[in-house]
Amino acid sequence: MMDTAAECCVPPGFRFHPTDEELVGYYLRKKVASQKIDLDVIRDIDLYRIEPWDLQEKCGIGYEEQKEWYFFSHKDKKYPSGTRTNRATMAGFWKATGRDKAVYDRSKLIGMRKTLVFYKGRAPNGQKTDWIMHEYRLDSDLNSPPQA
Amino acid sequence: MMDTAAECCVPPGFRFHPTDEELVGYYLRKKVASQKIDLDVIRDIDLYRIEPWDLQEKCGIGYEEQKEWYFFSHKDKKYPSGTRTNRATMAGFWKATGRDKAVYDRSKLIGMRKTLVFYKGRAPNGQKTDWIMHEYRLDSDLNSPPQA
Repeated sequence: MMDTAAECCVPPGFRFHPTDEELVGYYLRKKVASQKIDLDVIRDIDLYRIEPWDLQEKCGIGYEEQKEWYFFSHKDKKYPSGTRTNRATMAGFWKATGRDKAVYDRSKLIGMRKTLVFYKGRAPNGQKTDWIMHEYRLDSDLNSPPQA
Repeated sequence: MMDTAAECCVPPGFRFHPTDEELVGYYLRKKVASQKIDLDVIRDIDLYRIEPWDLQEKCGIGYEEQKEWYFFSHKDKKYPSGTRTNRATMAGFWKATGRDKAVYDRSKLIGMRKTLVFYKGRAPNGQKTDWIMHEYRLDSDLNSPPQA
């Protein structure tokens, strides 16, 4: 059975369908600052040691019709001294697609959302799948536009 | 501004998207039994004194993208001694459409869901609108099929 940490603490009928702004402005911000999050609804995983089809078991929050899973994972660098990100698992790899989307709290830029697709196999030959991931990051103050 | 009773008590990211089974088996059952409901997320209204387009203000639960509203309302009889239901408002009336749907808790019948459409004007001449209502009722024990 799945963990029902979330279900136990919110009344019946509530589902976790956060907006980008809630994910970045509340959950990710608190996580990065090591602050307590009200409800342990987003799990910690190591994305590079888990295949997309195994996420459900690790990140399910207790109700049936779930088709999205939420998790925190550290970025893994391709080379210890470099800045490139390694997003490969045993079975395949996550590849960015499209343009990153800005996440705003009202008019203030608070983060970015990258969309990635999972390919089975090894780059540059992988086989595209239907698995999609959104990767959120905080916008550092340095990158913020001046506030009016 | 809207009342934010619901938002104040559940963590960010949770939305009220109850299933039929939760509406009947938890919320309606408790209401009928006059039991306390964890969170005052479903309002009491008089459906026959409110037009569909005014529901948002009365029944909104604090977040923006809401397109469904939940409420409790007593049934109004057409005639004091009769069993027919009066579902007229000032501006129009609610008319049943399709067949009632059974609501189950696993395999046990716990209630029924009737679908109604709002017509502006007076029967039998009203003008059909896009407003849809689901009316839930408990299944009385007398109507239940024998349980295996």
